[in-house]
Amino acid sequence: MIKKNMLRKYAKLIVQVGVNLQKGQSAVIFAEADQHEFVTYVVDECYKSGASEVRVEWSFQPITKLHYRHQSVKTLSRVPDWVEEKHKENAQNLPCMIHLLSEDPDGLNGINRSKLQKSQQARYQVLKPYRDAMENKYPWTIAAVPSAKWAKKVFPGLRTSAAIEKLYEAIFETVHITEQNDPIAAWTAHNQTFKERCDTLNALHLDRLTYQSANGTDFTVWLIPEAKWEGGGETTLNGHYFNPNMPTEEIFTAPMAGKAEGRLVATKPLSYYGEIIDDFSITFKNGEASSWTAKTGADALSKMIESDEGARRLGEVALVPFDSAINNQNLLYYNTLFDENASCHFALGDGYTNLINGYENMTKEQLREIGVNQSMIHVDFMVGAPDLSITGYTKENTAVPIFKQGKFCI
Amino acid sequence: MIKKNMLRKYAKLIVQVGVNLQKGQSAVIFAEADQHEFVTYVVDECYKSGASEVRVEWSFQPITKLHYRHQSVKTLSRVPDWVEEKHKENAQNLPCMIHLLSEDPDGLNGINRSKLQKSQQARYQVLKPYRDAMENKYPWTIAAVPSAKWAKKVFPGLRTSAAIEKLYEAIFETVHITEQNDPIAAWTAHNQTFKERCDTLNALHLDRLTYQSANGTDFTVWLIPEAKWEGGGETTLNGHYFNPNMPTEEIFTAPMAGKAEGRLVATKPLSYYGEIIDDFSITFKNGEASSWTAKTGADALSKMIESDEGARRLGEVALVPFDSAINNQNLLYYNTLFDENASCHFALGDGYTNLINGYENMTKEQLREIGVNQSMIHVDFMVGAPDLSITGYTKENTAVPIFKQGKFCI
Repeated sequence: MIKKNMLRKYAKLIVQVGVNLQKGQSAVIFAEADQHEFVTYVVDECYKSGASEVRVEWSFQPITKLHYRHQSVKTLSRVPDWVEEKHKENAQNLPCMIHLLSEDPDGLNGINRSKLQKSQQARYQVLKPYRDAMENKYPWTIAAVPSAKWAKKVFPGLRTSAAIEKLYEAIFETVHITEQNDPIAAWTAHNQTFKERCDTLNALHLDRLTYQSANGTDFTVWLIPEAKWEGGGETTLNGHYFNPNMPTEEIFTAPMAGKAEGRLVATKPLSYYGEIIDDFSITFKNGEASSWTAKTGADALSKMIESDEGARRLGEVALVPFDSAINNQNLLYYNTLFDENASCHFALGDGYTNLINGYENMTKEQLREIGVNQSMIHVDFMVGAPDLSITGYTKENTAVPIFKQGKFCI
Repeated sequence: MIKKNMLRKYAKLIVQVGVNLQKGQSAVIFAEADQHEFVTYVVDECYKSGASEVRVEWSFQPITKLHYRHQSVKTLSRVPDWVEEKHKENAQNLPCMIHLLSEDPDGLNGINRSKLQKSQQARYQVLKPYRDAMENKYPWTIAAVPSAKWAKKVFPGLRTSAAIEKLYEAIFETVHITEQNDPIAAWTAHNQTFKERCDTLNALHLDRLTYQSANGTDFTVWLIPEAKWEGGGETTLNGHYFNPNMPTEEIFTAPMAGKAEGRLVATKPLSYYGEIIDDFSITFKNGEASSWTAKTGADALSKMIESDEGARRLGEVALVPFDSAINNQNLLYYNTLFDENASCHFALGDGYTNLINGYENMTKEQLREIGVNQSMIHVDFMVGAPDLSITGYTKENTAVPIFKQGKFCI
């Protein structure tokens, strides 16, 4: 049994460090119904931090699966007026948003992917204006809690209760919680290390990165000159500091949309909308995914890449050493929040606008023009390998080794 | 462990007999998050019956309690535009509404009742037009599933898992589900018995009923001449047959608002918004509750009766013999859905308009004028006793014994 004081410590960390909720702010928590106990702790911590109001947006994956199985594309695509109104209110009130992931990594296996894709495209079009309106204006965080099915996927040999306990312990380790410590102080120290790494990389003003591994990865990606490397905490436009991912071990930047060449071989499976994609590689030409193969989940991968025009292009380049604390756990989480922080990765799809120097004064269109990708998706996939070498090149073609044998070498 | 096939049988009964969902209709399910497994069965059955769309409106009582504890009356009172829009859409689409009760009977114990009352009053005013607009137009049902806390309240001596199992078994008995039977056929037969009882009473055209018991009950209530006795299934204005309560053992009619005299002594505790009211009696003068006492939950009782003007008057008179199947279980459910069907009862508050002959062609105002009570609350309380005698009187003052020694005698 996971001790209640540890669950409370975790809930408090999510509220105080994750979204860093301030007195008088409201919060929205997105969670699965089977996590009602932990969610209650998070709600309690929100109120203890002075939340004016907390709303829980529940879902439950087996029911989500029934919706996708039985509803027509037309019904799935419809955004009721009240849902649009809710997004509008969020864009006005800018609540803290807490996402608690706990889903079975392949819990939506078997649903019609084309139905999923079409309905998501339709809903995205309606809701995009509200998402755009609140971009970079509200604090948000993604954290995870074990469901029975997810825990059994990570620890298939254990009984359910033992698997859940073990997964909780592993998660606590990744987010720097121990019985004795003050995790808030641990996060402050942890975030400081990223700042130093980012400063070093930002000073290099790299034009492009090349990736090479014996597994077949042979790839070059060009960066946006105005884009910074960032990692750890972020700040909203009105100065609210928050930590969008718990855990986090990555530093990342925005690649130039439409400028990438070569092949990336994935080194970890990817759970995308409840289906596992595994043993896959993607080849880029003129910055766009031009061909791809997957031994598992090929259809899901295709549907993902074909979500929209921007889904074929890269939106994120992230560096994580092969000996990162999470990778040293030697666990396959089947959950991107953890696996992306255990491995160098890229994201297909939307790029982060707040990485661009001066983004506060630029329109979405201007940001797109200088190379920030736009898409309805943003999906990380992992390419870290023990022998991965990454070399940076400046505009003047000076080579700067960044990774050797899977680790930072600068 | 409750067998899955029994849970599926129950879910199917709720969908096919409770709301009697028809192909192409949508459904909304109101449920607590800890019931996610059973809710999944109900969603599945909705789709199997051809639902176009199913929405689950989740809540979780411990979180509800946190909201009432920490939010201001102003925040609790506010109905966001998107919530109003959702009610508007419900009033247009008229989905089947399934309410699954599972709450701890005193799970909201200790919250500020005045805060609860004020915020409910405010929300009621905003949402009333939408509720009025859909009245008698959509099928709905209330059924129950055991939560751990509720089960332990009913069976305090058992371990949690055994208590849940035992409460499930008791509930299955009340809704006519056995391992072998076809509960749908059992419901058809059961409902037939109410029809016969109602026909007998309707033929008497009673003017009033008097109640007498050695426990102190000494009471007269006047009935609305145009009101029928009904029980079992109901029919919406456009002819959709449904069963609003599962289980049901009552026949009921509409009392004349403002015409009742004497004292009613409650014979079972009442769980009202998560607090238990027990050992109470209410005295009526000129049809209004004029004084009341309660050994437990006196404040909750007062707040309830003072909800609005109509909350002081009666909205329902219901007859249930002391030897009803549910009462013969000798269980105290602390849940009105069961306890009201184990005992003669009255409701304070809103009256059912569809009991009035010709209600289809009458306005809310006309219905109020002929004596149907209106209120934001409708709360049943139980007065059945083993020695209860009820005598009906016609307009011509002919006495007709209805109950002797707690049972029907006509």
